[in-house]
Amino acid sequence: MHNPEAIARDYLAVWNQPNADQRQADIARRWTADARYADPMMTASGREAIGEMIEQARTQFPGHAFALKGQPDSHRDFVRFSWTLAPAGGAPVGGGTDVVRLDAEGRIAEIIGFLDGA
Amino acid sequence: MHNPEAIARDYLAVWNQPNADQRQADIARRWTADARYADPMMTASGREAIGEMIEQARTQFPGHAFALKGQPDSHRDFVRFSWTLAPAGGAPVGGGTDVVRLDAEGRIAEIIGFLDGA
Repeated sequence: MHNPEAIARDYLAVWNQPNADQRQADIARRWTADARYADPMMTASGREAIGEMIEQARTQFPGHAFALKGQPDSHRDFVRFSWTLAPAGGAPVGGGTDVVRLDAEGRIAEIIGFLDGA
Repeated sequence: MHNPEAIARDYLAVWNQPNADQRQADIARRWTADARYADPMMTASGREAIGEMIEQARTQFPGHAFALKGQPDSHRDFVRFSWTLAPAGGAPVGGGTDVVRLDAEGRIAEIIGFLDGA
């Protein structure tokens, strides 16, 4: 059985990781080599491209962090969770819901992200 | 560009279709041959199995219908929408959110469903 909350928290920790080398090491450990990412604004395929995409997104929102919102749920190889993006001590500036596909070893094979809110 | 609301409504119409032959014809037109379906309760692969799965679900909820809830959204080849299940004239007994993956021709290649609520 997967632990959907641990998967979601580990995933968001990668987005919040300021050190690019550490982030890439986390991606190498937790994502498949051919992992895919797609949300309404960004898409990337493969660990290196995903790491660069996250770096770009972080540059656009300096001082902001992603946080888990609500309770992740899971069935089979899928995890769903919602998140918010907020500056330190501030109100969220955005949020969304992501669906994660895991491979047989529990590594992230795909993220399909959607934006929530207004 | 996809029309996410039309895709969601057509999809739910298949679940609400009482005639098995008509339902299977709709699936043949709108789904890929190797389409996959997975939610917390059911999974199916291929048009025939998906049709049988829907038939079984309909048998469990006689007189109920699926209805679109809120506004579907979409990016790239993905559509997300929420739905409710309710008896005729009654309050919803359940609901969920589905993510649809479309193929290049706009046919449904995959549904990843989650249950919402309580």
